[in-house]
Amino acid sequence: MTTATTRGSVGTVRTRFHELSEPLPLDSGRELRGVRIAYETYGALAKAKDNVVLVCHALSGDAHAAGRSDDPSAPTTVDGVGAAERGTSGLGWWDGMIGPGKAFDTDRFYVVCSNLIGSCRGSTGPGSIDPRTGRVYGSDFPVVTVGDMVRAEHALLRELGIGRVYAASGGSLGGMQALEWAVQFPDAIERIIAIAATARLGAQGVAWNAIARNAIMADPDWQGGHYEGTGRRPDRGIRIARMVGHITYLSDHAVRAKFGRELQDRDAYSYTLTEPDFQVESYLGHQADAFAKRFDANAYLYISRALTYFDLARRYGGGSLERALAGVRAATLLISFSSDWLYPSRDSEEIHRALRADGKRSRHEVIDASYGHDSFLLEEARMTELIMDFLA
Amino acid sequence: MTTATTRGSVGTVRTRFHELSEPLPLDSGRELRGVRIAYETYGALAKAKDNVVLVCHALSGDAHAAGRSDDPSAPTTVDGVGAAERGTSGLGWWDGMIGPGKAFDTDRFYVVCSNLIGSCRGSTGPGSIDPRTGRVYGSDFPVVTVGDMVRAEHALLRELGIGRVYAASGGSLGGMQALEWAVQFPDAIERIIAIAATARLGAQGVAWNAIARNAIMADPDWQGGHYEGTGRRPDRGIRIARMVGHITYLSDHAVRAKFGRELQDRDAYSYTLTEPDFQVESYLGHQADAFAKRFDANAYLYISRALTYFDLARRYGGGSLERALAGVRAATLLISFSSDWLYPSRDSEEIHRALRADGKRSRHEVIDASYGHDSFLLEEARMTELIMDFLA
Repeated sequence: MTTATTRGSVGTVRTRFHELSEPLPLDSGRELRGVRIAYETYGALAKAKDNVVLVCHALSGDAHAAGRSDDPSAPTTVDGVGAAERGTSGLGWWDGMIGPGKAFDTDRFYVVCSNLIGSCRGSTGPGSIDPRTGRVYGSDFPVVTVGDMVRAEHALLRELGIGRVYAASGGSLGGMQALEWAVQFPDAIERIIAIAATARLGAQGVAWNAIARNAIMADPDWQGGHYEGTGRRPDRGIRIARMVGHITYLSDHAVRAKFGRELQDRDAYSYTLTEPDFQVESYLGHQADAFAKRFDANAYLYISRALTYFDLARRYGGGSLERALAGVRAATLLISFSSDWLYPSRDSEEIHRALRADGKRSRHEVIDASYGHDSFLLEEARMTELIMDFLA
Repeated sequence: MTTATTRGSVGTVRTRFHELSEPLPLDSGRELRGVRIAYETYGALAKAKDNVVLVCHALSGDAHAAGRSDDPSAPTTVDGVGAAERGTSGLGWWDGMIGPGKAFDTDRFYVVCSNLIGSCRGSTGPGSIDPRTGRVYGSDFPVVTVGDMVRAEHALLRELGIGRVYAASGGSLGGMQALEWAVQFPDAIERIIAIAATARLGAQGVAWNAIARNAIMADPDWQGGHYEGTGRRPDRGIRIARMVGHITYLSDHAVRAKFGRELQDRDAYSYTLTEPDFQVESYLGHQADAFAKRFDANAYLYISRALTYFDLARRYGGGSLERALAGVRAATLLISFSSDWLYPSRDSEEIHRALRADGKRSRHEVIDASYGHDSFLLEEARMTELIMDFLA
């Protein structure tokens, strides 16, 4: 369907599941038992097991990163600007980046992508059954961190017989995971590629995430987080949360270029409160509806909390990013986008400088792109060039 | 209490009310009957009635622009960064700008500020009684536009015996009103000062406003807009709306400088979903609570709709701003702020260029300020200099 597919698709893929053999200790001091992890793999594991590339997904992503799902009912996880271009074809969220001859070349690499713990797309999360009670966790699910998510990924790979990772990569929260890998498992990882990422979300990003979570928790159908089995779900709340997210993922330029002040299916204002007169209003409504259908509100709360808590300097460096990164052994490629105001280039530059101050191998490339934060899902050609060079 | 007060306060003031003698025709084709307008005046009207300065307020403002209210229960309308500096002292929202020796010098000018129609602060709005039914309008209140608001101001002044305005001024939505005055009543106004304004809100601004309105309308306590008398009000919805507004009014720099990632009353993460761990989360919660107490959700919907509908080129120029401004006779001072990303300087520059292309007297001053859109409430010293010069 797309050029990417004809160029080299990994074909039809099936999501697999693995249950971790041990409880997962969490940063909060709690632990998670009976952890199930959904994952997909593309390409073949080398005999030396030295060709593993871990791809990490962002807030609303999942294990289906490439190829076409064998489950025709699987909803696409690509939305926003990307969805319009990709359609609801069942293609993975980074299909343009993973496959034969692509950035993460499956002729060479064994690519693994797993669903985050805390999510709602196959791995253990707030919608799972709490083994202690036999009921759905809901908001009794423990708060998880990016550190916990990465520990789960590390345990999965170890139990799949993989001790070393050639590279870990991802955008946004996926990039945070790549950074966390380099800090938490310095001896197990050779390279990281952190795209549109940060070592800690800025105050504005913390605020946007708080607003989104507040919108969900303000919905009476959230019911304190125990809505499963009640027949009511906080769809209204997650709709608002998603609208906030959408606008922060796009640059001002992209919103202007795409929608401007164009009206939707009308020549004049409706002079009502409720009609979505403007195209951008209509678009937000459709995106919100689609998201409420496919994504669980509690999962959104947990993952949003994890990404606002992420702070390498606070967690590992007593406030100093240089100290936090002092043990890193992986070579690092940072990619940021000029129009990304949520995860701005200066955040990547800060990581780059801290790594260089520590004498580490680091490269930071700013791609001049107009889409904003969503560029990490869209600027495939230019990312591919940088990544292929880095992985060569 | 503040320097501004000791320098020259207009003293204690009382809000007055006037009922318009005629129905107000609206852009929607409907009309509004029995329109009551809350207003305040400062200074003395000259015999020649040639010293009138109209001050126009923004979304959440009201008629109490200067001095100390004679009603000790009157809630302050200054919030956000401004509130912290001004306290809950009952001072008007632009007290630093209006008074003896100030930018709008009450030794010279007769300053009038009236509450917008559609608001909830004394003028007729959705919380008023519908004379046709004897019940509160709620969402049966007609959608009003900035043009309608200005027509109400014009009618008020006319009925107060004032035929000409020396200057109209305001920030944000207040600046839109000043621009609308120049277009709609070119013969009745000599100068306008439009601060942090635009001739039409950009797509991102339309989106933020749509999200805020959606948050209110998604609250089941909104009840289709007819919540009066039910004992339930959409406080949860307006809380979210206000949080969105707050962050858009501040620059990224301001949010970082003020809050960063500092924790609120704790040394470590709570590892909960519901605690406001970060200062910025706690601040948003407090601001939202205060706003929900003092501002009516329906009024928010109507005024937000009015400012997204505002579009001089569409309304008066068949899409051309130059054509829309062709009849302007007022001299224009535009002030914008370098860090304002919601009403960016380029929007003011666009107005300036259109006026100059039409051969009009226009000046555009960009103030290098770090607070973002809220600067129009904060950068008093630098605005004062420009305004005094312009009004001299």
